[in-house]
Amino acid sequence: MSADESAGDYIARLTRTVPDFPQPGVTFADLTPVFADPAGLRVIVNGLVEAVHAPGVGEVDLVAGIDSRGFLLGSGVALMLGTGVLAIRKAGKLPPPVHSREYTLEYGNAALEIPADGIAFEGRRVLVIDDVLATGGTLCAAVDLLRSAGAEVVAAAVVVEIAQLRGRDLLGGVPLTALSLQ
Amino acid sequence: MSADESAGDYIARLTRTVPDFPQPGVTFADLTPVFADPAGLRVIVNGLVEAVHAPGVGEVDLVAGIDSRGFLLGSGVALMLGTGVLAIRKAGKLPPPVHSREYTLEYGNAALEIPADGIAFEGRRVLVIDDVLATGGTLCAAVDLLRSAGAEVVAAAVVVEIAQLRGRDLLGGVPLTALSLQ
Repeated sequence: MSADESAGDYIARLTRTVPDFPQPGVTFADLTPVFADPAGLRVIVNGLVEAVHAPGVGEVDLVAGIDSRGFLLGSGVALMLGTGVLAIRKAGKLPPPVHSREYTLEYGNAALEIPADGIAFEGRRVLVIDDVLATGGTLCAAVDLLRSAGAEVVAAAVVVEIAQLRGRDLLGGVPLTALSLQ
Repeated sequence: MSADESAGDYIARLTRTVPDFPQPGVTFADLTPVFADPAGLRVIVNGLVEAVHAPGVGEVDLVAGIDSRGFLLGSGVALMLGTGVLAIRKAGKLPPPVHSREYTLEYGNAALEIPADGIAFEGRRVLVIDDVLATGGTLCAAVDLLRSAGAEVVAAAVVVEIAQLRGRDLLGGVPLTALSLQ
């Protein structure tokens, strides 16, 4: 470990790469050991925070983490930015009323939800966080969900982007920061 | 909102309490609006960090959050303490090999898992975080899981403790900090 190690260095050194999980032909990148490392966590959170300095982003007043691995980094990024953190939940976890957005996964349909009372989303400027950007379906659904609730998604940030799946192309005009490409 | 508001004040003011969810007779405390509030999040994380100052706790070198709402606060607490954050996952989310611990829920069985390679748990001093302590089954399983991997669980901290369910009694000698009693 060195003070000069970048987020990409920590990810390359500590990620547990497991072939054929969760299904044959898919290689799973388990980032658990990266986040469990004190310096690794700090470098990753700092890198995600930097997403707010991308051109055109401006002020952020809410950080949203996507269920469930996006939650793991959400409060760290939110504290560094002086905002709260919003859990974007998978369907069925939140009591009604909710805002909901369905989307398509490789192996079926799913939905994301946020509360439809108790939080004012109108005009909120949101940074959306997740661990891995693959096909982009989940992140795109999170963006659409927040917009449908009245928020503006000003940036997205992920730890790992699987570039060949081109999930980035689904994000429309939302600036995306990725700490590592695979 | 006031600079003098305690964690309990934020929880009382912002929690969305919904009767008969997820099943009739159960009242669900949705803390989403508490964590989405900038000052609420900061006060909650600071309160969880204080768990390390309980008598007999001593040094902590890893913060563990329980899947999935425990994740939401984990990185914030870990950054404040200068540690990494460990995701304690529900069964089936992590690729093999894993350490696993089964436990009983009100409505069936479940298991928690952590990686069995890539992270050294032997002798690690862990603070376990979750949002709500109810019957204590999940938190107790997390403690047992970490111990079986060689770690020492030096403290636990939750945002809300439902005191009448006496989950605290299952924790053996692990000091528990709760920011709010219900």
